[in-house]
Amino acid sequence: MTEKVLLIDCPDEKGLIHKITGVLYNHDLNITSNNEFVDPVTDHFFMRTTFGDNGSTEVVERDFRNSLPPAANIRLVDLRRSPIVIMATKEPHCLGDLLLRDYNDELPSHISAVISNYDTLEPLVQAFNIPFHHVGHDGLERGEHEKGILKILEKYDPRYIVLAKYMRILTPEFVSRYSNRIINIHHSFLPAFTGSNPYKQAFKRGVKIIGATAHIVTEELDEGPIITQDTLPVNHSYTAKNMSQAGRDVETNVLAKALKLVLEERVFIYKNRTVVFN
Amino acid sequence: MTEKVLLIDCPDEKGLIHKITGVLYNHDLNITSNNEFVDPVTDHFFMRTTFGDNGSTEVVERDFRNSLPPAANIRLVDLRRSPIVIMATKEPHCLGDLLLRDYNDELPSHISAVISNYDTLEPLVQAFNIPFHHVGHDGLERGEHEKGILKILEKYDPRYIVLAKYMRILTPEFVSRYSNRIINIHHSFLPAFTGSNPYKQAFKRGVKIIGATAHIVTEELDEGPIITQDTLPVNHSYTAKNMSQAGRDVETNVLAKALKLVLEERVFIYKNRTVVFN
Amino acid sequence: MTEKVLLIDCPDEKGLIHKITGVLYNHDLNITSNNEFVDPVTDHFFMRTTFGDNGSTEVVERDFRNSLPPAANIRLVDLRRSPIVIMATKEPHCLGDLLLRDYNDELPSHISAVISNYDTLEPLVQAFNIPFHHVGHDGLERGEHEKGILKILEKYDPRYIVLAKYMRILTPEFVSRYSNRIINIHHSFLPAFTGSNPYKQAFKRGVKIIGATAHIVTEELDEGPIITQDTLPVNHSYTAKNMSQAGRDVETNVLAKALKLVLEERVFIYKNRTVVFN
Amino acid sequence: MTEKVLLIDCPDEKGLIHKITGVLYNHDLNITSNNEFVDPVTDHFFMRTTFGDNGSTEVVERDFRNSLPPAANIRLVDLRRSPIVIMATKEPHCLGDLLLRDYNDELPSHISAVISNYDTLEPLVQAFNIPFHHVGHDGLERGEHEKGILKILEKYDPRYIVLAKYMRILTPEFVSRYSNRIINIHHSFLPAFTGSNPYKQAFKRGVKIIGATAHIVTEELDEGPIITQDTLPVNHSYTAKNMSQAGRDVETNVLAKALKLVLEERVFIYKNRTVVFN
Repeated sequence: MTEKVLLIDCPDEKGLIHKITGVLYNHDLNITSNNEFVDPVTDHFFMRTTFGDNGSTEVVERDFRNSLPPAANIRLVDLRRSPIVIMATKEPHCLGDLLLRDYNDELPSHISAVISNYDTLEPLVQAFNIPFHHVGHDGLERGEHEKGILKILEKYDPRYIVLAKYMRILTPEFVSRYSNRIINIHHSFLPAFTGSNPYKQAFKRGVKIIGATAHIVTEELDEGPIITQDTLPVNHSYTAKNMSQAGRDVETNVLAKALKLVLEERVFIYKNRTVVFN
Repeated sequence: MTEKVLLIDCPDEKGLIHKITGVLYNHDLNITSNNEFVDPVTDHFFMRTTFGDNGSTEVVERDFRNSLPPAANIRLVDLRRSPIVIMATKEPHCLGDLLLRDYNDELPSHISAVISNYDTLEPLVQAFNIPFHHVGHDGLERGEHEKGILKILEKYDPRYIVLAKYMRILTPEFVSRYSNRIINIHHSFLPAFTGSNPYKQAFKRGVKIIGATAHIVTEELDEGPIITQDTLPVNHSYTAKNMSQAGRDVETNVLAKALKLVLEERVFIYKNRTVVFN
Repeated sequence: MTEKVLLIDCPDEKGLIHKITGVLYNHDLNITSNNEFVDPVTDHFFMRTTFGDNGSTEVVERDFRNSLPPAANIRLVDLRRSPIVIMATKEPHCLGDLLLRDYNDELPSHISAVISNYDTLEPLVQAFNIPFHHVGHDGLERGEHEKGILKILEKYDPRYIVLAKYMRILTPEFVSRYSNRIINIHHSFLPAFTGSNPYKQAFKRGVKIIGATAHIVTEELDEGPIITQDTLPVNHSYTAKNMSQAGRDVETNVLAKALKLVLEERVFIYKNRTVVFN
Repeated sequence: MTEKVLLIDCPDEKGLIHKITGVLYNHDLNITSNNEFVDPVTDHFFMRTTFGDNGSTEVVERDFRNSLPPAANIRLVDLRRSPIVIMATKEPHCLGDLLLRDYNDELPSHISAVISNYDTLEPLVQAFNIPFHHVGHDGLERGEHEKGILKILEKYDPRYIVLAKYMRILTPEFVSRYSNRIINIHHSFLPAFTGSNPYKQAFKRGVKIIGATAHIVTEELDEGPIITQDTLPVNHSYTAKNMSQAGRDVETNVLAKALKLVLEERVFIYKNRTVVFN
């Protein structure tokens, strides 16, 4: 018997939890964990439930559909099946950490492939026996370059795409093709220091803390829903380069944490904010 | 209409959430927040639900009693009524912080009185217009001294007693009189450095982090269920005295945080561990 | 014998430490702690030294002047003499914390007075037997209002002015009168969320961390040199109001920490950045 | 021109810094960074200075020897030459992280080899093209097993040995052979939870924070001088296994941080405590 994750969100109304748990009770399914949240500002209801699956999923899904408001988003996910593809450029720290976690079986998923616009990281990826695809962007328009990437992505059909320091901006077309399924690590505590060279900006401003932000990629650069953030103290002795070096660790940790939350399906996206059950 | 908190814990079985939310639904009560947890080790079920009260509490409580297993612990709490009494000795930092939070209306409760075995803190307490009771212990046996304190406590009938650096060990009789209702701040990251002079021990061991632990007081000194803990980096330049000074801030913050959790009834105690919904 | 703090900064050159420690050695003064830093970007030298004073300060100062480059900034400070004045508006948390620390003798200085544009905080300040001055701003131009404040400040001649949630913008004239001596707590992790209502902005952006920044006040609002910053995790369940409540604790802690650094003369200000020896 | 690190510690006396910087000044050497500390409890002086080397090291060292008290420990280190050897058992997280940092050129040194009592980690190490030595302990006495390891170590002549989750206790002979040069990561916030199964102990005690400790290995198990520690919040939903999983990240980060401090020669060991200049 395997475990399923049920994700429901809809406008709040009385009796929702009672109805949802009723469906599970009627099918003799045992709830192993449960989280709800009603956003007091939008009156929107969010619920994540895990239960031991006994094979009756299709019927269960139909019963949820019948007993809940028509506007409800209902997802039943089998965690075992969510391969990811990583996109990177030249920096190895985030990518290497994810490869290592995959190797150590720490991820609730597996890395199917790595795609990069440079071949710098090929030896690292190959050391872990993961397919590496180099899609150079030289002399190509953005759309053309992405076409090459999309072709590879289609082959792997990933549930999520992880931008592990992928340093090119994606077109709205690319983003909408994998809507709410692309995770990026931004090298600053957003919304501070958007755009490029955040550590240079941070040094210039004389901050005493630097951070990193993992977020869902949307059409607006650096404006997508935030999944998780963390910070690190720095001091006057840090140059922009030192900050960037120190920042690597917080970037690595934040991306790994966000990816775990996403792969365990603990993240709801609603109106440019996230609800994260952890 | 006021808000009530419902706290239920019992051995886990299928359908518990459905039954509990059913009672609320039948009484037309709207759930404003909800947390459940099933401990995988003991298979014990914990649920905390807040709902808008419409005055039918007595009937609701009876219905819970009827629909849940006989072993279930059921509590319906009105958060507005939980006065606390603080016990302290000579150090002002934790006490002063709580007095200030009370003054700023940050606590979900009010401080009814302060009791101390010294009169050192009397002016501070009086500055906040809170009754101060000095119960000296000189020449008294522990039991006799506590008799004086208990007499005062009875008058105030506090829901919780907060030991804000009260430096005397309580007798088992005192503890059992207010079982699970006495909160203590221990000046170390328990279980490291139990007993007295933890900062001296910490200095001697050359630790690079110090901490504080808020816990429920039980008969075993420093062994009660932990509510919350936090830590603070220190370095070689800290003497035991410096550590103690730095420790004041972490003690103050940890006690304030624990008290907020307790007063909002977010803490379950079960087999010397706590389940904290925050 | 008391302790003195020596603060020197100047363009770097070979032999500076040797010359400075030579002066102390010649006067038979014992160094109790010492920090230097050479900023690799500007090649500027910073040194903070504490030594046991034997009364020969005037001669020592002259010898430093003679042995160091003319461009050197040299300060010899007696820590015991640095009274502060606090300016506040209506919120009690930062002010109350500082009053309490003063009462507990935790500050290396004393609070001479509190000035406010409202009388809300008068009872709190009076409870600690500190003079409270209400200087209302109703119907006054900014300059006129500040004239009233400056008159009071002159009387107390504070080394530092602490803006403990003082919610009015100071004129360049006021700032330059107490240049590099006014400390402010900003309720966000600067440079994120400048201006007013930072918690509302933070909620809207869906951040997972909030912060606070203590900085030196300069003519540019929210742009002064940062002394210290800290952050706090938040989640989807926090409304803007909850963030603001949680933010109070981090604001309080950050301001207290910054003030301690400033009063112990551990902070150099150089080109809109700070060098902090701690 | 390369950079040298000068490390001096001795009983404190007046004029030490002046003398030391005098030697450097006389040789026309420029100090690029400098830290001193006098332990107020033992009156012991510690100084770490980096300076641009112009090839006159031998003469400089002789001059230091001549101008300082005979009891002074004086070390002149060239950071570029400090290869390390890692010892591990079966767990890949700490080892993998260090291999990755070595691959990314983040370490101020290089990993010469990995030695393990199992062959589990061989493929991971080989992926990074680092020599792997399997020295099984089956049927061998502790001393015999260590003989095999020592033979390999001699070949590599490492400055430091890193125990990256090496799960066997070393003999006093082994420890004294590499005195103050073996770094271990302990999977708890020492001195809490010494010995084996710390996460099981932590779960049983119901702690709300777990930690990790990097320390110098001495003859007394888990009692060596602490280099660095860090902690991580946990809650009631963590089983001992979850704690152990979460603990992997803090172990990994703490060991990496400690190793960086050690390899940059920022750590003094004195009477079972460390002085760490960072």
